[in-house]
Amino acid sequence: MSEAVIKVGLLGLGTVGGGVYKILKKFPNIKITKIAAKNTDKNKDLNVKGILTENVMDVANDPEISIMVETIGGINPAFDAITTAIKNGKHVVTANKELIAKKGSEIFDLANKYNVSFLYEASVAGGIPIITAMKQSLAANKIKSVAGILNGTTNYILTKMEKEKIEFKDVLAEAQQLGYAEADPSSDIDGHDAAYKISILASIAFGCHVDINKIYREGISKISITDIDYASELGYKIKLIAMGNFIDNNKIDVRVHPALVPKLHPLSTINGVTNAVSVYGDAVGEVNFSGPGAGEMPTASSVVGDLLAIVKEIGKASMTLPSMRNNYNNNVQLIPIDETINSYYIRVHSIDRPGVIGSLGLICGKHGVSLSQVIQKDLLEGNIARIVLLTHQVKESAMQAAIKEMEEHESTKTIINVIRVLK
Amino acid sequence: MSEAVIKVGLLGLGTVGGGVYKILKKFPNIKITKIAAKNTDKNKDLNVKGILTENVMDVANDPEISIMVETIGGINPAFDAITTAIKNGKHVVTANKELIAKKGSEIFDLANKYNVSFLYEASVAGGIPIITAMKQSLAANKIKSVAGILNGTTNYILTKMEKEKIEFKDVLAEAQQLGYAEADPSSDIDGHDAAYKISILASIAFGCHVDINKIYREGISKISITDIDYASELGYKIKLIAMGNFIDNNKIDVRVHPALVPKLHPLSTINGVTNAVSVYGDAVGEVNFSGPGAGEMPTASSVVGDLLAIVKEIGKASMTLPSMRNNYNNNVQLIPIDETINSYYIRVHSIDRPGVIGSLGLICGKHGVSLSQVIQKDLLEGNIARIVLLTHQVKESAMQAAIKEMEEHESTKTIINVIRVLK
Repeated sequence: MSEAVIKVGLLGLGTVGGGVYKILKKFPNIKITKIAAKNTDKNKDLNVKGILTENVMDVANDPEISIMVETIGGINPAFDAITTAIKNGKHVVTANKELIAKKGSEIFDLANKYNVSFLYEASVAGGIPIITAMKQSLAANKIKSVAGILNGTTNYILTKMEKEKIEFKDVLAEAQQLGYAEADPSSDIDGHDAAYKISILASIAFGCHVDINKIYREGISKISITDIDYASELGYKIKLIAMGNFIDNNKIDVRVHPALVPKLHPLSTINGVTNAVSVYGDAVGEVNFSGPGAGEMPTASSVVGDLLAIVKEIGKASMTLPSMRNNYNNNVQLIPIDETINSYYIRVHSIDRPGVIGSLGLICGKHGVSLSQVIQKDLLEGNIARIVLLTHQVKESAMQAAIKEMEEHESTKTIINVIRVLK
Repeated sequence: MSEAVIKVGLLGLGTVGGGVYKILKKFPNIKITKIAAKNTDKNKDLNVKGILTENVMDVANDPEISIMVETIGGINPAFDAITTAIKNGKHVVTANKELIAKKGSEIFDLANKYNVSFLYEASVAGGIPIITAMKQSLAANKIKSVAGILNGTTNYILTKMEKEKIEFKDVLAEAQQLGYAEADPSSDIDGHDAAYKISILASIAFGCHVDINKIYREGISKISITDIDYASELGYKIKLIAMGNFIDNNKIDVRVHPALVPKLHPLSTINGVTNAVSVYGDAVGEVNFSGPGAGEMPTASSVVGDLLAIVKEIGKASMTLPSMRNNYNNNVQLIPIDETINSYYIRVHSIDRPGVIGSLGLICGKHGVSLSQVIQKDLLEGNIARIVLLTHQVKESAMQAAIKEMEEHESTKTIINVIRVLK
């Protein structure tokens, strides 16, 4: 590590920024010399008045600063500040998932052009060192799949639904009251947050740009306690899974949706706000990571980890610049959800008459969908049969065609839910 | 990555060496130009005849080779070859846990002196990137504890005992027949292998030398199905745990022994030959890693990961040399097991008479040991009462004094087992 004091500029002094400030206090050779923050309410007790500015460009343009840490989130002014800092020859560390997901390629190119490091370990899964693991430790592997629980709020909700038998809406309301979920919860519960994160992991895993707009995305609002209980009976938990699968050198499958996860799969054991990632590499096989996915100090731990990696390099005649994997391939396409292969859990309410399961089975068979398990529960009032089907793997388009025909069948009252199963 | 071809020398062409050779075939800019191997039976199909030598020094002294990979294991000739290679300015990658545990400090000093990289990710937990994670990604943290399941053979045996209710000796015999356990199984079942590995992880975590001979070590041969079943009733699994705990800047607690692991702890879910590590850092909190702990390709994945990290640096005017953490502290002492603090599971066979549990409780109380749970099972033949005690945390020396007095008590037939509980 270099002996000279390294000067660092910080954008944002909220939860993550405050954590970064606190950790860096312990490193005498690293000094935060300027902080851009509009609102310092969360960190009133930090003695930073003399180095505060309201303008992020004051940091990005400060010639004394060699590393800029961005913790304000969102696209602007973060993007402008980061590109300016890079053009000024500064290294940049960020925790900004939205920015990497939407503007990552552009920033990576710029960082390469200006010969600076741009690191973002904290942007996915908070304190879990998944990005360094994939870029560096697993570099000998061709990554075949990466699947994770990347959003703590939805995992907290699903865990609470499962353990305490409280329905989605009520858990969400409680989580909002406690500050675990946002007033507008869409980013979490509709899977946007997880989509940003899996776009970043899939980019690294498969060495290509992943268009955030092409990621299939489905949230957890349709999941009920009944689904969770039936899934459990079948040997599964229900989790919001973000996944990327390698198909061939030109095709990948990247998506976010609730999934039945086998109880023996490591991801099924992840409860509450914890995040987890399961990576399958052709040499190593399956490696699993779990830990805190958010929060002041866990996220700051990853930010400062990146920063220390850069500090170690500063002062060398020629720096090693960790960025994306090599051989970045621009010809990789995301396949649409219709073309993906899955097993499915289907919950149906039917009119109770003899042969109703047979009819559903026949419809499935007609579309090439083969069933692996069928459960029929006690009748509901009004003579309604509750049926759960579990299928073998089949193409989504075939499954959707079968669902459509089941919906139109005279015995069917409602297809209550269709949930994919994690392989 | 450098465009010129990097020449690599390989020591050993057994399981791991063969895996390294196979993976490197896929990297056109890296070429294995010499292999030292006495026995190539495992990899007869590899076309390596022209580059084979029987003498490791032919590799260590080859001026064309810039990186030497050591996969032969044991102290010699690995140590001599590695020190020679380092003195010749070569970077070295190894998977050799015994060598790092016994000779690590010496080699690190030599590598620093000769300005070369010496990496050993594969020496602990096979394919799991735990060393890079602790040295780099978690560098912002003061590590408070590291605990792992680091030996696949013993975890396989304990899992099989639990799931199939087969006693230790029979599972071991079967594992030996199948080649999962060595003919002389002591290295695995007595905890030597796990002790090497935790000495390496504790060195990194706490930034100090850990004397392998001072690590308290206890194997699994005394664990019975009955213990596993009682532990389960109390909410625990029994695992062979290797752990290191930070106590203060001058004291650490490093040991290997069977432990009751709470069923909600991530390590309790690790079955079969899988390895896992749980790290607690002051900023990040708890982060968990699991994956294949051994085997040809997983271990080779870590070896080649290290090698690629070095390749990335070669050709730079000034290399970044990842080695141990900074601030290596030579004043850190391992505390003896007597001074450690634990909860305990104690299984006792007593003469069944009124007040027997009271007597045991009184003895514990006298030594400051407080009980958290007591189970008494149906009598065995001969009027033998089966009692299981679970204690709150207490110093080992106090617990041992209580055990001694319990043993001497007139009602006690036998103290069948005493097993520590993972915090």
